[in-house]
Amino acid sequence: MSSDTKFTGQKFKSIGTSPLRPDGIDKVTGRARFGADINLPGQLVGRILRSPHPHAAIRSIDTSKAEALAGVKAVITSADLPDLTNGNSELFNILDNCMARTHVYYDGHAVAAVAAVDATTARKALKLIEVDYELLPHVTDVDEAVAKGAPILNKKCFTEGVEPKPRKASNIARRSEFGHGDVEAGFAKAAVIIERNFRTEQTHQGYIEPHACVASISPDGSGELWVCTQGHFVFRQHCAELLGMDVSKLRVTPTEIGGGFGGKTHVWTEPVALALSRKANRPVKLVMSRDEVFRASGPTSATSIDIRIGVTKKGRITAGDATLRYASGPYVGMWAELGAMTSFACYDMKNVRTVGLEVLVNRPKTTAYRAPSAPMAAFAVESMMDELAASIGMDPLEMRILNAAKKGTRSSYGPVYGPIGIGPTLQAAREHPHMSAPLGKNQGRGMACGFWFNFGGQTCTDLNIAPDGSVCLTVGTIDVGGARASLALVAAEELGISYDQVRTVVGDTSSLGYNDMTDGSRGTFSSSMATIMSARNAIKILKERAAKMWDIPVEKVTWEEGCAKAVGKKYGNLSPLSLAEIAEAAPNTGGPIAGHNELVADGAGVSFATHICDVEVDPETGRTQVVKYTVIQDAGKAVHPTYVEGQYQGGAAQGIGWALNEEYVYGEDGRLQNSGFLDYRIPVCSDLPMIGTQILEIPNPNHPYGIRGVGETSIVPPLAAIGNAVSNAFGVRMTHVPMSAPRILKALDEAESKKADETQQLPLEL
Amino acid sequence: MSSDTKFTGQKFKSIGTSPLRPDGIDKVTGRARFGADINLPGQLVGRILRSPHPHAAIRSIDTSKAEALAGVKAVITSADLPDLTNGNSELFNILDNCMARTHVYYDGHAVAAVAAVDATTARKALKLIEVDYELLPHVTDVDEAVAKGAPILNKKCFTEGVEPKPRKASNIARRSEFGHGDVEAGFAKAAVIIERNFRTEQTHQGYIEPHACVASISPDGSGELWVCTQGHFVFRQHCAELLGMDVSKLRVTPTEIGGGFGGKTHVWTEPVALALSRKANRPVKLVMSRDEVFRASGPTSATSIDIRIGVTKKGRITAGDATLRYASGPYVGMWAELGAMTSFACYDMKNVRTVGLEVLVNRPKTTAYRAPSAPMAAFAVESMMDELAASIGMDPLEMRILNAAKKGTRSSYGPVYGPIGIGPTLQAAREHPHMSAPLGKNQGRGMACGFWFNFGGQTCTDLNIAPDGSVCLTVGTIDVGGARASLALVAAEELGISYDQVRTVVGDTSSLGYNDMTDGSRGTFSSSMATIMSARNAIKILKERAAKMWDIPVEKVTWEEGCAKAVGKKYGNLSPLSLAEIAEAAPNTGGPIAGHNELVADGAGVSFATHICDVEVDPETGRTQVVKYTVIQDAGKAVHPTYVEGQYQGGAAQGIGWALNEEYVYGEDGRLQNSGFLDYRIPVCSDLPMIGTQILEIPNPNHPYGIRGVGETSIVPPLAAIGNAVSNAFGVRMTHVPMSAPRILKALDEAESKKADETQQLPLEL
Repeated sequence: MSSDTKFTGQKFKSIGTSPLRPDGIDKVTGRARFGADINLPGQLVGRILRSPHPHAAIRSIDTSKAEALAGVKAVITSADLPDLTNGNSELFNILDNCMARTHVYYDGHAVAAVAAVDATTARKALKLIEVDYELLPHVTDVDEAVAKGAPILNKKCFTEGVEPKPRKASNIARRSEFGHGDVEAGFAKAAVIIERNFRTEQTHQGYIEPHACVASISPDGSGELWVCTQGHFVFRQHCAELLGMDVSKLRVTPTEIGGGFGGKTHVWTEPVALALSRKANRPVKLVMSRDEVFRASGPTSATSIDIRIGVTKKGRITAGDATLRYASGPYVGMWAELGAMTSFACYDMKNVRTVGLEVLVNRPKTTAYRAPSAPMAAFAVESMMDELAASIGMDPLEMRILNAAKKGTRSSYGPVYGPIGIGPTLQAAREHPHMSAPLGKNQGRGMACGFWFNFGGQTCTDLNIAPDGSVCLTVGTIDVGGARASLALVAAEELGISYDQVRTVVGDTSSLGYNDMTDGSRGTFSSSMATIMSARNAIKILKERAAKMWDIPVEKVTWEEGCAKAVGKKYGNLSPLSLAEIAEAAPNTGGPIAGHNELVADGAGVSFATHICDVEVDPETGRTQVVKYTVIQDAGKAVHPTYVEGQYQGGAAQGIGWALNEEYVYGEDGRLQNSGFLDYRIPVCSDLPMIGTQILEIPNPNHPYGIRGVGETSIVPPLAAIGNAVSNAFGVRMTHVPMSAPRILKALDEAESKKADETQQLPLEL
Repeated sequence: MSSDTKFTGQKFKSIGTSPLRPDGIDKVTGRARFGADINLPGQLVGRILRSPHPHAAIRSIDTSKAEALAGVKAVITSADLPDLTNGNSELFNILDNCMARTHVYYDGHAVAAVAAVDATTARKALKLIEVDYELLPHVTDVDEAVAKGAPILNKKCFTEGVEPKPRKASNIARRSEFGHGDVEAGFAKAAVIIERNFRTEQTHQGYIEPHACVASISPDGSGELWVCTQGHFVFRQHCAELLGMDVSKLRVTPTEIGGGFGGKTHVWTEPVALALSRKANRPVKLVMSRDEVFRASGPTSATSIDIRIGVTKKGRITAGDATLRYASGPYVGMWAELGAMTSFACYDMKNVRTVGLEVLVNRPKTTAYRAPSAPMAAFAVESMMDELAASIGMDPLEMRILNAAKKGTRSSYGPVYGPIGIGPTLQAAREHPHMSAPLGKNQGRGMACGFWFNFGGQTCTDLNIAPDGSVCLTVGTIDVGGARASLALVAAEELGISYDQVRTVVGDTSSLGYNDMTDGSRGTFSSSMATIMSARNAIKILKERAAKMWDIPVEKVTWEEGCAKAVGKKYGNLSPLSLAEIAEAAPNTGGPIAGHNELVADGAGVSFATHICDVEVDPETGRTQVVKYTVIQDAGKAVHPTYVEGQYQGGAAQGIGWALNEEYVYGEDGRLQNSGFLDYRIPVCSDLPMIGTQILEIPNPNHPYGIRGVGETSIVPPLAAIGNAVSNAFGVRMTHVPMSAPRILKALDEAESKKADETQQLPLEL
C-alpha cells in the first residue's frame, strides 16, 4: 500500500456525476455481444451429459455408439480431463464438478460431453452414451446431512478445523470459529436471552444469461476462450491448469455479462468446451440451458443456523453465539466460514462466538452469491435483534444504534474497524421519512442492517492517450454494473478532461497483467485505484512532454484542468497546452503517451447498510407484497451515484426474492423439481415497489477518493427486514426463508390457533 | 533515441534460432481468422456500387428505388460521408476514393453503397441505384497524361514543388528533386554516357485475402471495426477522422492478414462499412471481390523513366540524372518522390540529380507496394549499370563494387550513410558459387542491386508476466511475416526464458498506445526495440521483487538466465529465484509484474541486396523462365533466420512476377481488362526455382541487437537482374517491364532483323 492511495479529500468535477453508461444503448438495442453471440467459422456445438441421480458410483461409460454417430466430432469423459491438479483440492473439486470422475454427487452432475456439427446431432449423441451407475443413498437437507446415520458423500472427508483430526468420515467438511471474549460470562450478564433456529433455503443468482462460451484450442497447444465471466483471468488460470497449458498460452476474452452475482466466478463448462475443442480440433460453442444452470451451476447454500443472543434491560448486547450450518453441495466451500465471520459484524460485542460448519449434501456445487453467506446469517441476527428489542420494550432501531460498531470496535471476526458507516446508516434511518410514513391495513414495517467486507486484490489498468487526446482506458475487471462508466469518470477526473473523451474497455487476458475477478465489490474500488495511478503516471509524462515542447524544466510544469501550465513569472507568456495538443505533438516528443499500473488494492473499506421495509400480507392467502422499501448504505464515495443506487436497488430486489419466493425444491428422489423460472420465481417488476435509496459517504481512508465497494451489502438486510415487517404486522416471527405464501399462511394460522387457545383460556383468567 | 537502444554486440541464445511460428498451424489448418471470418449477430451485407466509366462528373444519384427494396437497410452516397477533413488533402483524397463526390476518376471508383440482409438483396439494390454521369475524356497512360492536350483530371491541380506556382492546371501533381554536385560537369568528365527511357507497367500486390471488414457503430457513437489491415491504429485514425468520431471511441481489432505488401496501409472500404452501419444501425460486413480488389484497391504506379549515366573508362560513375514519372492514379501520391530518392542510393556519386513527377491518370488510387517505387527506378539504373559496364568492357559486378556506397558516403537522397551492406553483398556475390555455375542453352545470367530505406516510427509493447511465469507479449504492429515468432524470441532472449514460454498477441487499438503500421520494413525492427525495453522494464521489477523476497538490497540482485541471482559473498546461500517463482509470489510482493514501453524507433538501418539470376528464354515464343536465383541481403541481425529467408524469397518472387508477367491492361475505353488472377498472372510455384538466400549481418548501430528491416529490399533488384540476364543471353536490352513473352519475342525479332541487316551489309565492308 503506497501512501499515494490514501484518501486526501480532494474536490471533484466528474466524480459524483451520473452520465450514461457506454454499454447502455448496446444492451437495450440487442447489439451487445454476450457469451452465446460469439461464433467462429467451423465451430461445433457442445453438449454435456448429466447424471439423473443424486448420488451414484460410475461403474463405466461407453461412448462408442455416440462416437460412431455421423456428425459427432468428439466425445469426452473425465479421461479427457485427467487430474493435473497436483494436490490442489480446490482445483480438483472444480475439475470433478466439471466432469465427474468416480462418482456423481447430484442430479445434473456432468459425466460426459460431445461436440457435434449441430445441436440435434449433439443431443442424439448424448442419448447414445451409456453410463453404468451404481446408485447410492443420498441426502439433500443440511440438517439431515449432519444427523446420525446420514449417507456420507465422501468417505475421505474428515472435518477440517477440528483437533484432533476426526477418524470418522463426516458430511461436515470444515469447522471454522470466530469471536472473542467469554460468551458464557456474557450470557450470565444478560437480562434476556433468546435462542432460536433459523433456516434458509437454497437460492440461485438467477442471472439472465446462462453460462456460455466458445473454446478453440489449436493443435499447437495455444487456445482461445470467449466467455461470459466475472473474472477472465481466473478462468484462464483454472482452464490452463486443468488443461495442462502454460497460462499465457490461453487467451480469454470476456463477453458482456448478463448477470453473474457471484455465479460466474469459477469455471463450470469451460474446461469441458476446451477439452472438446482439443479433441475435435475445431472450435466448440457450449451454452448451458436454463435447466442446466439451475441443476448444475452454483447456487448458494441452504442453511440452518442456531443462534443465541443476550441483552441487558437497557438493550446492550452482552453475548452472541451462533452455529451456522451451510450446505455447500458435494465439495467443501468457504460459505459457513463467511457466514460465521459476517453474523455479528454490525455490532460492538464484548463476547461473541460463531462456529461455521460446511456441510456436504447431494446438491450442486455451491458458489458465491452477492455478499455470499451474509444474508442468511443476517436473517438470524437481525430477526433476533427485533425480537430482543421487543422483549425489553425497546425500539429496535434504538437498540441497534446503541450496539452499533464504530471506529475502533473490534469486529466479531477479528479486525478493528476504521471509520465505518453502520452508525450513520442507522442515524439516517431514524431521520428518514419512511420511518414515520403511515402504514395501511395488513401492513407492517421492519428494518434490518447488513454488512459486507469488500475486497481489493490484484488489479491492472492501462491508459493510452490517442493522437487526438481522447483516452482509451483498458481495465481487467469485468463490468457487471456500470464500472466502465465509473472508471471513465475516474480517468476524466484525474486528467481534467470530459467523461465522453474516455472509452473504457475491458481488456482480454493478453492485454493486461493478472486481475482478480469482479467479486467482493472490488471492481470499482480496485480498478479506480489503478486508474488513478495510471492517469497520474500519464500526467507525469504529459508534463515532461510539455516541458520539452516549451523547452523549460519539468519542475516548472503543473497539470490543471486538462492542461499543462507553466509556473513562474518567467514563463507567463506560455499558453497552457491541452492534452490534445500534447498528444498531437507526441510523435516528435518521444512517442505515444500512456500510463500503466499494476497493484494490489489493499484497504477495501467495509460496508454497512440499513434497510427499511413495509410489507402487506394478505391474511387469506399469505401472499406478501413489499409496498415500500428504502436502502440506506455507505458508499465511501459514490463515483456514479445512479449506478450506486442501481446496485443498492438490485441487491435489495434479489434479497426480496430470496426472502419471499425463491428456493430450490428437491424431491425425495434427490432430483431438483423446479429448474426453470416458471417454478423458481424471481421477483419481476410488478412484484417490487420503487426502491428508495439514500447514499451516505463515509470516506474509505485507504482509497484516494474514499471509495468503498457498494455492490453486495444491500442483499444482506432484506430477509430479516421483511421478516421483521411481517412480525410487526402480525406478531409472528418467521424463522424460515423463503417466507412464501404457504409458510406465512401456516405461521398466521398457528398464531391464530395460539390466540384462539389464549382467548378460550381468557375467561378463566379474568 | 535513448542510448539504451544502441547496438552492444551481445551474445544470443534465442535470437538467430528458427522455431515454428505461433500462427503457423492455425494458418495451414484453416483455423486462423481473417477479415471475412468475423461474424456478428444481426450483421448486414455491404456492397459498393462502382463507376463503369474512367472519368465522369456525377450529375445526380437516385437511391430511392434501392432504398425501397425489401431487405435493404441502408443506402449511402458521399452525402453520408461528408467532408470533415478540414483541409487535410491527403485524407480528403482517401475519402474521395472511398466514395466519389463530384467526379469519378477511374473504372471502379465507388459512388454508392448498400447494406442489406443478404448478398442477393444487396446486389439487386446496387442495380436499382441510378447514377447520372456526364462522361469526360480520360487518360490512363503516364506519358500520354503529361503530353500536350491531355485530358486534365483535376482542374485544381497545379504542380506542387515548382516555383513560381504554375497558373495552368496539369496532370503533374508534384515535382520533387534530389541530388548534389554538378551533374553537367560530371557528364563532361565521362568517357561514356548512355541515355535511355525505361517503362514499367502497373502491378498489384496480389495478396491472397481481399479487403474485408466488419463494422459496427452504436447509436451512442462508439464503434468497432474488425479488419484485415497492416495498421489498425492508422485505420482507426482515418476512420475516426472521416466519420467524425473521437479516435478512442473507435476500437479496431486486426484479424490475421492474408498478405498486404503495402496494399493494406490505408482504408478503402472501411469508412463505407462504418457509415453503412451507422445508418442501418446494424453491424455491416463488407468484403471486396477480386474484381474490386484489382479495379479499386491501390496497385503500384506505372512509370516512365528518362535516365542518363556517365562513367569513366575505368568504370567510375561521373554523373547520373533521371526524371521519373510515376502514375499515381487520380490523387497525388509520394511515389515519384520515393522513386527519385531511391534511384541511385546504392552508389557513391559526386554528381547526381533525380526529378520525380507525380502524374495523375484515370486509374485507381495507387498505394505502397513493397519497397514502393524502388523497383522501377532500380530497373532503370541497374539495367544501365550493366550496359555501361559492357560499353567499357568491364565486369558489371566489378563496376558496381567500384561505385558502391559505403560508410560515410553521402547518399543521392541526402543523408550520409553509417555502416551499410551494399559492398558486402556485392563481395558475397563475387564469391558466391552461383556466379560461376554453368549456364545452359538459351540461358543468361544477370545481377542487380537494390536499396530500401527501412523505417522505425511509433511503437508500443506490453509485456505481462502470468502467475505461472509464462509471458504475454502484446504488440501493436501487424504480423505479416512471422513477427510474432521473432518478437517472442526477443522477449525470451531478454528474460532468459524459452521461446515457448512467450505468447505474442497483436493487440487491438484499445490495448496499446498508437503504433505506426507494419510498413517500411519496420515491424520487427521497431517492435523488437520496444519489446527489449518492455522486457528490461519487467526485469527491473523482477529484481525488486526478488530483493523483497530475500529482504536484501535490490542493488545486490542481478538477472541471469531467467533467474534473479544474489551477488556478493554475504548472500551466497540464496538460491536463484526463477521467473516463475517470482511470478508466483507476486500477489504478496506488490502485484502483477509487467513491463511497458512506448517509443519512437529511430535509426532504422538502410538495407541493401544483391541478386543473381539465371533465365532461360525460349527464342520461339519469348517465354522466359527463371532457372536459378540467389538473394544476398543484409539483415543487420536475422532474429529468425528462416523467416528472414522467407522475406528474401517472397520479395524476389514478387519482383520476378513483376518483371515477367504482371501488368494492368487498360482498353481504349479506359476500363481494366484483366481484373482477375486468370488474366493478371502472378507467379505460381511452378514458375519459380527454389530461391537461394544468403543472409549477411552488418549490425545496425541504432538497434540493441543490430536489427535492420528485411521485408522489402529484395523486391527491388529482380526487374533489372532479369533484364540483364536476358541481355547477357541474347544481347537485347529490355527497357519495358513486364518482359512478357510478346515483348521479349519482339525484342529478339528486332535484334535478329538488325543482325540480318548488318550481315547483309557485311560484304560491302569487307
